[in-house]
Amino acid sequence: MKNQIENHKKEYIDQLIELLKIPSISADPKYKQDVKKTAHWIEKALIDIGCDQVEVFQTDGHPVVYGEKIIDSNAPTVLVYGHYDVQPPDPIELWDSPPFEPVIKETLIHPNGAIFARGACDDKGQMFMHIKAVELLINNNALTCNVKFIIEGEEEVGSDHLEQFITDHKVKLKSDIIIISDTGIHNMKNPAITTGLRGLSYMEVTVTGPNRDLHSGLYGGTVANPINTLCQMIASLHDHNKKVTIPGFYDQVQEISEEQRRGMNKNATPEEEFQKSIDIDASVGEKGYTTLERKSIRPTLDVNGIWGGYTGEGAKTVIPSKAHAKISMRLVPNQNWQDISKLFEKHFKSIAPEGACVKVTTHHGGDAYVTPEGHNAYRAAEKAYQEVFGVAPYAKRDGGSIPIVPMFEKILGCKTILMGFGLDSDAIHSPNEHYGIDNFLKGIETIPLFYKYFSELEKA
Amino acid sequence: MKNQIENHKKEYIDQLIELLKIPSISADPKYKQDVKKTAHWIEKALIDIGCDQVEVFQTDGHPVVYGEKIIDSNAPTVLVYGHYDVQPPDPIELWDSPPFEPVIKETLIHPNGAIFARGACDDKGQMFMHIKAVELLINNNALTCNVKFIIEGEEEVGSDHLEQFITDHKVKLKSDIIIISDTGIHNMKNPAITTGLRGLSYMEVTVTGPNRDLHSGLYGGTVANPINTLCQMIASLHDHNKKVTIPGFYDQVQEISEEQRRGMNKNATPEEEFQKSIDIDASVGEKGYTTLERKSIRPTLDVNGIWGGYTGEGAKTVIPSKAHAKISMRLVPNQNWQDISKLFEKHFKSIAPEGACVKVTTHHGGDAYVTPEGHNAYRAAEKAYQEVFGVAPYAKRDGGSIPIVPMFEKILGCKTILMGFGLDSDAIHSPNEHYGIDNFLKGIETIPLFYKYFSELEKA
Repeated sequence: MKNQIENHKKEYIDQLIELLKIPSISADPKYKQDVKKTAHWIEKALIDIGCDQVEVFQTDGHPVVYGEKIIDSNAPTVLVYGHYDVQPPDPIELWDSPPFEPVIKETLIHPNGAIFARGACDDKGQMFMHIKAVELLINNNALTCNVKFIIEGEEEVGSDHLEQFITDHKVKLKSDIIIISDTGIHNMKNPAITTGLRGLSYMEVTVTGPNRDLHSGLYGGTVANPINTLCQMIASLHDHNKKVTIPGFYDQVQEISEEQRRGMNKNATPEEEFQKSIDIDASVGEKGYTTLERKSIRPTLDVNGIWGGYTGEGAKTVIPSKAHAKISMRLVPNQNWQDISKLFEKHFKSIAPEGACVKVTTHHGGDAYVTPEGHNAYRAAEKAYQEVFGVAPYAKRDGGSIPIVPMFEKILGCKTILMGFGLDSDAIHSPNEHYGIDNFLKGIETIPLFYKYFSELEKA
Repeated sequence: MKNQIENHKKEYIDQLIELLKIPSISADPKYKQDVKKTAHWIEKALIDIGCDQVEVFQTDGHPVVYGEKIIDSNAPTVLVYGHYDVQPPDPIELWDSPPFEPVIKETLIHPNGAIFARGACDDKGQMFMHIKAVELLINNNALTCNVKFIIEGEEEVGSDHLEQFITDHKVKLKSDIIIISDTGIHNMKNPAITTGLRGLSYMEVTVTGPNRDLHSGLYGGTVANPINTLCQMIASLHDHNKKVTIPGFYDQVQEISEEQRRGMNKNATPEEEFQKSIDIDASVGEKGYTTLERKSIRPTLDVNGIWGGYTGEGAKTVIPSKAHAKISMRLVPNQNWQDISKLFEKHFKSIAPEGACVKVTTHHGGDAYVTPEGHNAYRAAEKAYQEVFGVAPYAKRDGGSIPIVPMFEKILGCKTILMGFGLDSDAIHSPNEHYGIDNFLKGIETIPLFYKYFSELEKA
């Protein structure tokens, strides 16, 4: 099958580029039609490879695309989840090429080129590998599992309507394993399978002071300036050891054994290399933990956006009426995201000083997840990676969140294997997001092997 | 002359409305042509009332308009300063009517109506009173002083090029007193003359963390998030008594005697009324001082704008590369704004934690000013207000800054009298800025009396 991939390489890349050109930004209502257009693009792609029951399902948000290929009711069933929506491209001025005009460029890490575009890796490129892998299996008459695709359009905004959809289509979606490619390997020589994901609680806060913007000369010094107040409140959310100060925040955190910590740190990127990669002179995080631990087994709190007052050119001497921030927390196993959201809200309101009025809303969230390493599907993935990369993948914990993974388990009672092929350097969610051509092609090569080994192991 | 004002009322208002329609926003380069257009509008107005030597002077920024009426080389000379530029109207969505489409509405405070528009009070409305007042004097052959007008277009952005202009035209601008209407009275029954202004130092800061925006899941907890860092740095600029923590900040502050403090507090707006006017449940400011003192005789520090990360609709899980803030300090007599800017820069850089890189720039500034209450011009103004309002005005200290006032004194060796007619409730620099019709007309009535009494007192 490797030869066939090599022969179809140009066609695969051209198709992905076509998909990447549609700005399916789910967060911005302006792009609603483009999101819809993308759903129909996926619909056509699934029909083209020979899927049945292909349908674009409307939801109260963006649509979900479904398609399936059932070969034998006795064969194991694999549910492929992916998302066709993308993050907003801001700050747009930092892109070297327009985010929705894909270009292929060689880089140090990708001597065979990488596709630069919003969504190249997250998740259009990784999701599309599955469509092409199943196409190969169908064309070669080598599909040994039933396959169901569920490709959604709201992952980047919290998958708000997916829970309802899954609940409504529980029977249709019944499977033995879910596979998702929305994570990464360690590097091109050392594959890895993500076995842990952090949870997420994403909040928005508004601090209101006076009922209107005030002249900072006439009022400066007499009222609680909402920006100063917000800064003060945000600053207090970490102590000097960079621990989150919200009461109860760490109560449910699962501590990892010293042995497990030693094991995971063996594969860590050297500290200097990490710092150099993002041009910082010091890593900063919770005292007592390594960089790798801080971004995988420890919960964190970050401000993702802040705004208030005059932010244009030049100077305006104003005390604004309001100041805002988007604040998210990454969670670890055992922390319930809804509980954490409530703890945040309660605490944030409690620290509001006099003269300030605070509003807290929850955007979305999800719990952390740990994948079972003993599952047949995990072992099948392990063998598939080993065969393609020549090296056994190691199990790694990721700092990111895919809230639908614990949700799938809750509703469908089904485990998930995270077969990612991206790299940390792919700049997902950042300007100049890209996805290596080799990563893309190795993904298309690895996935069919997974199906093969999974059906073998399930039959054994 | 009061009758004539009553007869020309409609004409005066119509002319002011025409002037207010031009969006002369000096801060925004997009409005450069409108700023220029406004300068030529003023040029024409000065010619129309009979001024000589009227000229629009180009500068390296926006133009300065000059015009004069010299009646007698032995008569005292009054220099009228005003500005025709306005603040940006943001946040535009909070205006009840478009900022550059003036409307007249009655309000509780203004039963005879107020003109709502950006610049209505600050400073087009107040500046235009002087043009109309001098027109009246000329038409009645009652001008007893020489008059020189200098109307600039960069007051709202720091009057960057005025110093050069004044220096270049020192001889032309020679005068006995400068009068400016860019401040306010206490209320419609109790006039006041501003005798003190605060200085200003306006800074912009940028905190840089990683060299690109990062995914908050993959990196959250491992790097100094520039927004969190900026918040922490801003929070540390005040202590728990709301004193500014910049070393040396208070060193040069002129302390006011207990007696003077008692005197000024007698005219203070009751605390409940103040809080109610801007809908806050508590005044917040430097410990040990009243609200009136905090906004007049004490220096302060306020964040005027903050931005960083994702600020659009919905959620984006990003750790931004940069976070920014505009921070200004109001200064009191004896504080040198350039020294304070340097102290700020030095301190702000010194508190940057590891993992963060800080850039500090100075936008503009000016020193504080105190007007002499014994000057003939002050006494002339006092008599003029008394005659029109029926009550003697009291001397008040303002929290705002007009940096050109100390600059005029330095270069021209000339004092300034601040004959303002606005009200605190005019919402200058805010949405729904307005200026009372009565304030406007009373200004046109008061100014000619000032000329009369000033020339009498100077001759005596």
